[in-house]
Amino acid sequence: MSNSITFRTDTDGVTDPKGFFASAASADIRKKQNERLDTGVVYSTVPCAAAGVFTKNAVKAAPVLDCERVLRLRGPVHGVVANSGNANACTGTQGIADSLSMIRTAETASGSPRDSFLVCSTGRIGDLLPMDRITPVVHSVAEKAKDGEREGSLFANCILTSDTRKKTCTATFVVNGRTVTVGGAAKGAGMIQPNMATMLAFITTDIETDSETLQKILKESVKHSFNAITVDGDMSTNDTVLLLANGQSGVSLDETSVDLFSEALFQVCDCLADKIVADGERITKVVEIIIEGAANEREAENVSRAIGNSLLVKTSWYGNDPNWGRLMDALGYAEAQIDQYAIDINYNDVPALVAGNPVPENKPKWKEIVSKPRFTIRIDMNQGDGSFRLRASDLTEGYVDFNKSE
Amino acid sequence: MSNSITFRTDTDGVTDPKGFFASAASADIRKKQNERLDTGVVYSTVPCAAAGVFTKNAVKAAPVLDCERVLRLRGPVHGVVANSGNANACTGTQGIADSLSMIRTAETASGSPRDSFLVCSTGRIGDLLPMDRITPVVHSVAEKAKDGEREGSLFANCILTSDTRKKTCTATFVVNGRTVTVGGAAKGAGMIQPNMATMLAFITTDIETDSETLQKILKESVKHSFNAITVDGDMSTNDTVLLLANGQSGVSLDETSVDLFSEALFQVCDCLADKIVADGERITKVVEIIIEGAANEREAENVSRAIGNSLLVKTSWYGNDPNWGRLMDALGYAEAQIDQYAIDINYNDVPALVAGNPVPENKPKWKEIVSKPRFTIRIDMNQGDGSFRLRASDLTEGYVDFNKSE
Repeated sequence: MSNSITFRTDTDGVTDPKGFFASAASADIRKKQNERLDTGVVYSTVPCAAAGVFTKNAVKAAPVLDCERVLRLRGPVHGVVANSGNANACTGTQGIADSLSMIRTAETASGSPRDSFLVCSTGRIGDLLPMDRITPVVHSVAEKAKDGEREGSLFANCILTSDTRKKTCTATFVVNGRTVTVGGAAKGAGMIQPNMATMLAFITTDIETDSETLQKILKESVKHSFNAITVDGDMSTNDTVLLLANGQSGVSLDETSVDLFSEALFQVCDCLADKIVADGERITKVVEIIIEGAANEREAENVSRAIGNSLLVKTSWYGNDPNWGRLMDALGYAEAQIDQYAIDINYNDVPALVAGNPVPENKPKWKEIVSKPRFTIRIDMNQGDGSFRLRASDLTEGYVDFNKSE
Repeated sequence: MSNSITFRTDTDGVTDPKGFFASAASADIRKKQNERLDTGVVYSTVPCAAAGVFTKNAVKAAPVLDCERVLRLRGPVHGVVANSGNANACTGTQGIADSLSMIRTAETASGSPRDSFLVCSTGRIGDLLPMDRITPVVHSVAEKAKDGEREGSLFANCILTSDTRKKTCTATFVVNGRTVTVGGAAKGAGMIQPNMATMLAFITTDIETDSETLQKILKESVKHSFNAITVDGDMSTNDTVLLLANGQSGVSLDETSVDLFSEALFQVCDCLADKIVADGERITKVVEIIIEGAANEREAENVSRAIGNSLLVKTSWYGNDPNWGRLMDALGYAEAQIDQYAIDINYNDVPALVAGNPVPENKPKWKEIVSKPRFTIRIDMNQGDGSFRLRASDLTEGYVDFNKSE
């Protein structure tokens, strides 16, 4: 099935599907006068079906509350307005007003109906948005997008904070001679710059469908991509994944196309999620933790997260140290059914522990494996059929230095 | 009540109560030939009531399983044998045999009955104990303790791993002209040296009581002392708190003495717990997180741990950065009932957030407070009566460097 999907990375992303436009500019939100892009708009003339997955943090930023509100209305959606440099989180009622104002400005400038725009912010928590500088820029970029500018690449840049590179990719497939495109852009995880939060992802597609179906497929895709990564274990107030579908490919999401579309969407989500981990703050390694044989999927996830978030495990990866004792310690405090004398641990395909018995003669091989920038730890709990894959990073002195002050 | 308790720190600890003896020596467990003390025994000629609180990690080291077994027998206990440098964790059936062998050697050398010794190990995970070197040393130190050596201070040193100083304290109080003493020694938290685990605490007292009563009081004491600290959020395979009571003061634990004893025991536990955090690996700060007004105590604890274990919060403390946005983010993902517009945050007594509204004019004061080596963060959730106090440390580049390899 996935053989029929053409996948490319470092593309224009959100403007690759038919009928999507975008623009971005600098509103100098951080007041550094460096003309860094920080404000952008994605726009479709044709109304879209829309879906969103948001942070589970109980402290939600104003734009997250606004996205949830707009999606609940189930009306047609024409676009997204976004900014970096300020998260509009913990900003009280003024924050709610500012978020709504960004929506209204984008709608007015693009001639779109009320509550047809979604909104995302990322950056510093607790400061009010400089609306005097943001409003005119939102207006001008929304006009440019309406006038047909297709600067998906600029948009992908304007959402970055402490990311070191833009993150985009695009998948296409053909149904009855017609091409369907799914394009996406994301910004990094790790709580990013000092005071900065958020993972954001924006995905567009020209398939034809309704919001309800779109929501169901997006949720499933996010579960094993964006929700299966960890850099520092902190969950932000602003995490958002948005998906817009405008139908311009002429292909409907139906029994013929659903599997291909789901796979294409997952490939886009998974690629962006991987880029986020790989660009985590001052990390040097991406480690795939595969837990198998847990009592159920939930427990497999618990075990993978206990390992992927353990400071001792992460620092040992950084030090090229195949310290399986720390893996055992971390999985021991995960909420899961565990028999320490039934566990198998492998680094790539090299056993470290077999049914609870160490295999010390393999130590030189583990050492070689954990010295690489990417490797896999595969653990079989031998308790049941539950499995989960988590992508995690190491923890470096650079992370601490980077985050120790504003 | 606590006015009647005399409290001293940096004492001999476990040999301060009447009738307790101790000795320690080097078995060169780490094979570094530096004569570092690593093996010790605590001993009482008179049989003791005994209680213990252990790691909740599902992967338990062999000595932890042995302590639980001996305590379940409810027989008289005469002492404890302990070693540092090797945790005897993840060591399979040989580890179980080695742990039992340490018990038997101590019993034989001190002429004590079968299963009257408890055993603790701390250090590297996954390596077998060098029993050829340990057994003769356990034998000789147990003989010395039986012969009346009262080297509580040596014992306190022999359990240390990456700790930079010994941790002891002693509390006394008088009942009807008779002095009751509670003495303790502990070793550090943070998963200590590379591959090393464990917080251990040994407490002795000469009050007269039974094991069941002792267990109840110890459990309560541990809850708000040793179980209310965090350095790196990792829970070890070996964490153990043991309490022995030999009755040699001539004072019984009864209605007259129970409050004084409980308070004295808590002071000892709390002091040792504080010393553990303050000596955490390469930390520079101890931060007391006091959560009040949570829906219940459990949720208050969840909130305090989300904050105390957040890498972003801990690195900001290290950087003297009063970053309350990161506190809000962390409490937002704690499992607790939260209304972000009802929360008050104070640094010592200086408000940062009042009912969800920032108080930015106080920023210079917060900055001064978080620059100190000790400060308090007090958060009122305004949801109910639940409260919890957690002692946490900052996270430094030194921690990462220290733990990155063996």
